[in-house]
Amino acid sequence: MDTLNLQARFLTLRSNKAFELFVVFVIIFSAMVVGAKTYELPGWSMTVIGYLDLAITLIFLTEITIRFIGEERKRDFFKSGWNIFDTLIVVISLIPIQDSEMALLGRLVRIFRVLRMVSVIPELRMLLNSLLKALPQLGYVVLLLFIIFYIYAAIGSILFEQINPVLWGDITRSMLTLFRVMTFEDWTDVMYETMEVYGFSWIYYLSFIFLSAFAFLNMIIGIVVGVMDQEHRRIEQELHPEPSMSDLQREIGELKAMVAQLAPQRIGTER
Amino acid sequence: MDTLNLQARFLTLRSNKAFELFVVFVIIFSAMVVGAKTYELPGWSMTVIGYLDLAITLIFLTEITIRFIGEERKRDFFKSGWNIFDTLIVVISLIPIQDSEMALLGRLVRIFRVLRMVSVIPELRMLLNSLLKALPQLGYVVLLLFIIFYIYAAIGSILFEQINPVLWGDITRSMLTLFRVMTFEDWTDVMYETMEVYGFSWIYYLSFIFLSAFAFLNMIIGIVVGVMDQEHRRIEQELHPEPSMSDLQREIGELKAMVAQLAPQRIGTER
Amino acid sequence: MDTLNLQARFLTLRSNKAFELFVVFVIIFSAMVVGAKTYELPGWSMTVIGYLDLAITLIFLTEITIRFIGEERKRDFFKSGWNIFDTLIVVISLIPIQDSEMALLGRLVRIFRVLRMVSVIPELRMLLNSLLKALPQLGYVVLLLFIIFYIYAAIGSILFEQINPVLWGDITRSMLTLFRVMTFEDWTDVMYETMEVYGFSWIYYLSFIFLSAFAFLNMIIGIVVGVMDQEHRRIEQELHPEPSMSDLQREIGELKAMVAQLAPQRIGTER
Amino acid sequence: MDTLNLQARFLTLRSNKAFELFVVFVIIFSAMVVGAKTYELPGWSMTVIGYLDLAITLIFLTEITIRFIGEERKRDFFKSGWNIFDTLIVVISLIPIQDSEMALLGRLVRIFRVLRMVSVIPELRMLLNSLLKALPQLGYVVLLLFIIFYIYAAIGSILFEQINPVLWGDITRSMLTLFRVMTFEDWTDVMYETMEVYGFSWIYYLSFIFLSAFAFLNMIIGIVVGVMDQEHRRIEQELHPEPSMSDLQREIGELKAMVAQLAPQRIGTER
Repeated sequence: MDTLNLQARFLTLRSNKAFELFVVFVIIFSAMVVGAKTYELPGWSMTVIGYLDLAITLIFLTEITIRFIGEERKRDFFKSGWNIFDTLIVVISLIPIQDSEMALLGRLVRIFRVLRMVSVIPELRMLLNSLLKALPQLGYVVLLLFIIFYIYAAIGSILFEQINPVLWGDITRSMLTLFRVMTFEDWTDVMYETMEVYGFSWIYYLSFIFLSAFAFLNMIIGIVVGVMDQEHRRIEQELHPEPSMSDLQREIGELKAMVAQLAPQRIGTER
Repeated sequence: MDTLNLQARFLTLRSNKAFELFVVFVIIFSAMVVGAKTYELPGWSMTVIGYLDLAITLIFLTEITIRFIGEERKRDFFKSGWNIFDTLIVVISLIPIQDSEMALLGRLVRIFRVLRMVSVIPELRMLLNSLLKALPQLGYVVLLLFIIFYIYAAIGSILFEQINPVLWGDITRSMLTLFRVMTFEDWTDVMYETMEVYGFSWIYYLSFIFLSAFAFLNMIIGIVVGVMDQEHRRIEQELHPEPSMSDLQREIGELKAMVAQLAPQRIGTER
Repeated sequence: MDTLNLQARFLTLRSNKAFELFVVFVIIFSAMVVGAKTYELPGWSMTVIGYLDLAITLIFLTEITIRFIGEERKRDFFKSGWNIFDTLIVVISLIPIQDSEMALLGRLVRIFRVLRMVSVIPELRMLLNSLLKALPQLGYVVLLLFIIFYIYAAIGSILFEQINPVLWGDITRSMLTLFRVMTFEDWTDVMYETMEVYGFSWIYYLSFIFLSAFAFLNMIIGIVVGVMDQEHRRIEQELHPEPSMSDLQREIGELKAMVAQLAPQRIGTER
Repeated sequence: MDTLNLQARFLTLRSNKAFELFVVFVIIFSAMVVGAKTYELPGWSMTVIGYLDLAITLIFLTEITIRFIGEERKRDFFKSGWNIFDTLIVVISLIPIQDSEMALLGRLVRIFRVLRMVSVIPELRMLLNSLLKALPQLGYVVLLLFIIFYIYAAIGSILFEQINPVLWGDITRSMLTLFRVMTFEDWTDVMYETMEVYGFSWIYYLSFIFLSAFAFLNMIIGIVVGVMDQEHRRIEQELHPEPSMSDLQREIGELKAMVAQLAPQRIGTER
């Protein structure tokens, strides 16, 4: 009964707005500590930061423990991807880091604590979910874009390898170079270089830019239309909670039946 | 009674279209004076500009005084942010400026006089208000974008600080560098530099570009959908001042009642 | 009677599809001649081109004469801006050009003959008209964008003039530099240069980019929404040539009147 | 009967999901082989790749033979553009390649095998078709954009040829340079160069950027509106499979006729 009591209390605490705000504040503070460490700082402040870091880790550990105990069925806790992510981040932060190799990992893990903001603030979690939901729709356009990239990269590797092996040495480099061309970043330098050997290679670049831009544009329009679609339906339903056409038709039908019932009686009377 | 008369007169003057046009003209003239000062000019013209500047300041002072006196309740005058802004700009312009430090401030204040255009032309004020209204909707997407920037900047500061401290020295510089990458401005130079040390750092840049572009795109779509939404509702209401479905349903209901009333009487007759 | 006959014939000719196609072909040929002249060509071909050019000019002269004679009321001919444009282009082409100054003008006029494509093909003329129609809607946003540019240019001229007079020497140069920044073209080079003197000048650039991008985005959304609006109304009317709600309401009203007429008769019978 | 049997079997095989998946897998594998060849590889692996390549070609040959035999009417097979494309790719792959000239063609043909992905996966084929369908709508805007490019290129060739013949030598180079300006790629370098001779040539660049950007924007909006249009109609029909207004009107009409029929009978009774 004591543990049940504890669980109920922790469940209340977990849903407490002040508790959430406190956690968000600690995350922001943790992000600021991460940011501060990138500056040149005097030795003593590094010690302070070390203690602050430990404090943050302990607070996160406490918070997750509270959330875990507050969970009614312990199994469900690890069914949520965010809970697993939170636990991992905290556990790895606990590992003492001495040697430089592990130190790097330790520092990187501390950066990902900022992502806890997403796991804690429900609005951000919803936003991220809706972003992720938009991705699969794009599947085939992304595949098409990839095919365009692959074909042009393969052609580029064959034709331009001798001209500039750094840019066109193999298919991976070629794809990176093509991505650069797609972002218009010094793409003319790349083009002028190959035009000295193949005078007509501007056709290669221009056709690539048009094809990829066209596919990309369709991708964006695809997303926009998809989003609009949903919005449209939502608005439709919101604006017209009114009776539908079918409702009206049904009622007119009922009316007809009534009038029809009236008529035979009439006829009966007239007889 | 005299002052009341004055106030009423000034209120009329303030709403006068010609008065508004005159003020707009003075603001444009003031902007041209500011622009002219950036050119190399002979000494005597600087003196002329000095006098023109004084004249503009006095006209603005008179205009604000008129608007202030024209206000029915003096307190309300300073409730409008634009009035406070106008007054501040004029008052600071009045301070005589000699030493070079203050001269710079004086010149900057004279530039912001151009912003008075927004405070004077109602259409521009409305436009700016509608732009500002669009901002808070974006709150969470901006926060997400900032989290993406912060995480990548922290990673960049740790990994690439040794390679180029000018670009990746601390988290502020890294964020500036990432903004540069996001605008595709010589981003390959930044990338190739780090790729010499970390061969796979192109993953860092490409993932950043995709994530930030995706979040940014969602931000734009968010605004577009929001604006469309409002337009949609406005059009709906404009296009359908016609009876709604509910109106029709109500009328059919009435008709039914009438027919129903008819029927029992019928039955009564038949009996 | 003879001239009337001629006019009627020319009017027919003018509206003839084959005649229009022939003119379009001559314009395309004229454009190709203009293009050919930009290449290094042997002397004899320049003579050929000279004769071709003369032939084109004569054909255009004939065409405009036909169109002018074909016009019923001669005054109306010069009421159309395109007719004036066409006549000007042809007349200036007729002036013999010897000295190099006039030769340049003659060559430029020959280029603008390509624009005759727009005056001859009705679809292009309509397209251009609809593009021009979209412009005035944007008036206030463009004004706002210009105010932003002007203020930043004035600030830039004052603060950065000493650092790089080529970029920030006067307000015109500053506005050109800011336009360059807005297109993200080597904007970091401009920024890093001023950051060496004013460490915080990145605030100037970033705020400018955000403000101008935001205003620009609103401009685009404004156009899109405007176009959508029109489309929407067009579709609505196209999709619903069906009876409107009001029609239905009127009919139900008539029905009610009929039933109501039925009822008193009823009552009369029962009495 | 034997051949009919074979055809029916092959028709079944052709529509088999597992068969399609196998072909997709072979295409992906073929793409990987093409990619692998762009890397520096030891001699023996080139031999392996040669054998793999032969195997892929044979599989493709078998697949097309199956599809051809599976076709009911042999003529229809070559009516589909994709079938012709597939056959061509396979047949050219069969030609043994020794000398370096043909080797290049052979390698390029092998790259286009990746495009077979589009011919095999129905969703990609549909996507490409819908992309192609969007093109003709844009006809006149593309023509307008081309006219803008041509006029500016001709002017550029005349004015700037002496300044930089590499960029402005003839009309083709000028158009390429203008496309570069349109993508904002180092466009200020091009501009500053000509501004040294013609101080006001920034008007040339800025007007070109505004005109082309405006036309381009209209092109995109045109596509978006077109796509939205279709979506709109689709949604309308999907959301309202309900009775239309006309249906309701017809029913009300029937009801009126019934009531009208009732009334004369009434009158008859009353007589």
